[in-house]
Amino acid sequence: MEKLHISCDGGDYDILIAPEHPEEALALPGGKLLVCDSNVAKLHRAWAEKLTAPADTFVFPAGEKAKNADTLLAICRRAAQLKLDRGATFVALGGGVTGDLTGFAAAIYLRGVEVMQIPTTLLAMVDSSVGGKTAIDIPEGKNLVGAFHQPCRVVIEPRLLATLPKRELGNGLAEVVKTAVLGDAQLFELLESNARRLFDAPLPEDLYAEIILRCCRVKSAVVAADAHEHGCRAFLNYGHTFGHALELLSGFRLAHGEGVAIGMVLAAKLAVRLGVCEAELAARQLELLRALGLPTLVPAGIDPRACLDAMRGDKKARNGRVVLILPEAIGKVRAVGDVPPEIIADFLREVFA
Amino acid sequence: MEKLHISCDGGDYDILIAPEHPEEALALPGGKLLVCDSNVAKLHRAWAEKLTAPADTFVFPAGEKAKNADTLLAICRRAAQLKLDRGATFVALGGGVTGDLTGFAAAIYLRGVEVMQIPTTLLAMVDSSVGGKTAIDIPEGKNLVGAFHQPCRVVIEPRLLATLPKRELGNGLAEVVKTAVLGDAQLFELLESNARRLFDAPLPEDLYAEIILRCCRVKSAVVAADAHEHGCRAFLNYGHTFGHALELLSGFRLAHGEGVAIGMVLAAKLAVRLGVCEAELAARQLELLRALGLPTLVPAGIDPRACLDAMRGDKKARNGRVVLILPEAIGKVRAVGDVPPEIIADFLREVFA
Repeated sequence: MEKLHISCDGGDYDILIAPEHPEEALALPGGKLLVCDSNVAKLHRAWAEKLTAPADTFVFPAGEKAKNADTLLAICRRAAQLKLDRGATFVALGGGVTGDLTGFAAAIYLRGVEVMQIPTTLLAMVDSSVGGKTAIDIPEGKNLVGAFHQPCRVVIEPRLLATLPKRELGNGLAEVVKTAVLGDAQLFELLESNARRLFDAPLPEDLYAEIILRCCRVKSAVVAADAHEHGCRAFLNYGHTFGHALELLSGFRLAHGEGVAIGMVLAAKLAVRLGVCEAELAARQLELLRALGLPTLVPAGIDPRACLDAMRGDKKARNGRVVLILPEAIGKVRAVGDVPPEIIADFLREVFA
Repeated sequence: MEKLHISCDGGDYDILIAPEHPEEALALPGGKLLVCDSNVAKLHRAWAEKLTAPADTFVFPAGEKAKNADTLLAICRRAAQLKLDRGATFVALGGGVTGDLTGFAAAIYLRGVEVMQIPTTLLAMVDSSVGGKTAIDIPEGKNLVGAFHQPCRVVIEPRLLATLPKRELGNGLAEVVKTAVLGDAQLFELLESNARRLFDAPLPEDLYAEIILRCCRVKSAVVAADAHEHGCRAFLNYGHTFGHALELLSGFRLAHGEGVAIGMVLAAKLAVRLGVCEAELAARQLELLRALGLPTLVPAGIDPRACLDAMRGDKKARNGRVVLILPEAIGKVRAVGDVPPEIIADFLREVFA
């Protein structure tokens, strides 16, 4: 078992990776509400309920569509019906949607109760379960409404990945590559040497535990330095400014990790163009993403002008100015806020052709 | 003009009472969204829009009913449609409902933007605009979902009280009496000497400015010491544990201040019974509340058992244990968490008869 202690503005907590005694990790004081979607309920509900017992469980329909105000309110109402008080803990068992919804509900129920995260997807294990960002989607855009709310604990069981569809695993690996490029060159090499094994059955659990630990370390270091996203936390958005726009414009046919994979390819290309990094970096990254079976080309039919508009509508943009996170070397990125929109527009027209 | 600087966990800000140049106070950088209800829109929208210009205005139907998730979401969606970014400020122009809704929307839109409060009711001027508590009602209860979100500034214009219905003014005065009992004996005496003048037309604006300043001082001192309600902030709930329960059980025919007025009468009576204060305190408080035209008797038809249940369901209760705020002297209260439920039940049966 690995244990990572996180200390940041908004809370101190532990991330437990492959705990030997999960039942102890999950023994919580106060009332509990376990939240999961209909898919996870089938796979892991019994396991989780045994660990969190006694707890009531709130199940919602699987899918990003459920990440809305209705589900959020329904979780809070269930908690109120159960008369859970401020000593209660919500337990999020699932992927990013579940973690975001449950974390946000915990942030606002009675103006804040605890939330424990038990991520079941690789994406959630390496990314969304750590850092305290929570949100819902509104018709105007994804994650436009939310809160910063740190978990009281994160329990990660790499074993749970065994039931994850391959596309979901790939999604998570895109986020792992992102983390490697922005802050861990050794992790990048580990991925290069093991790309072929990562989809093997049975899954190499120890390798995943190592990958997850490294990702959580990088992410938590960044978050600890900047919990409220005033500075270096923006580094975590490497590949995301392009990626979010592509996800949106594909009508979400591109999954999050797929958008990020293509977004990283674009960011690295632009970085080479602007002289921020060597061409070799872009090539190595491209090869790794391909080896992991991730898409690297912008899907046909997406308009470069619409892409730029979507990027400028991103909530990290200020006064319509896009902040780009560009790689300098494997393990190091830089925020660049002064690329003229015309340069980005020209670049997009070219790569989208 | 009076200026009060507030420094607390979650933000530093100024409360400006009767500012000479409100247009300067309201000159804000970034995008703005002015939020008010349909009543306030008729009375003060033009004035406020001139001060905050350029700003878009979101108007919702007046009444506590609008303090729900739908209105909250509608505010956030409007902001998103206007493409307001993280540098934006929401301006709450109105009473407690508007302040709570707008403050909560500001807390969660893009995970947090600024909110400025311009209270138009006495209740909001002395209470809800200060302290950063925001919330909405859900079918299971009032204020069960919300956030702590400090305003970036509070601008108080006692002149705006001139358009306030008498019952609303009384509601605010109940909260003023509460503040006096919990922390300002001189304010209590000021009210005793001026009770008759407080409803005169034209309203004594200077007297109100003095009252509001004293209330904000007491409240902000308490909030500064305990922004997240772990300790002495509970003092602000004097009269509210009984009061909220009575509001609820009256089907909200009792207004908030009216519930609090009766709640203070009950709290003082119980305090005398338990030997926490002298009978004279209860008598003085009763006389002042009557002089202010506030109700002091539990309305007929409310069941004492239901009242106790409602009190135990209050979000300040822990494990069903009710924390009561009881007066020791004019200007001093105490939190008492160990009154056995049977004692409270007996007391309620008696006073409700």
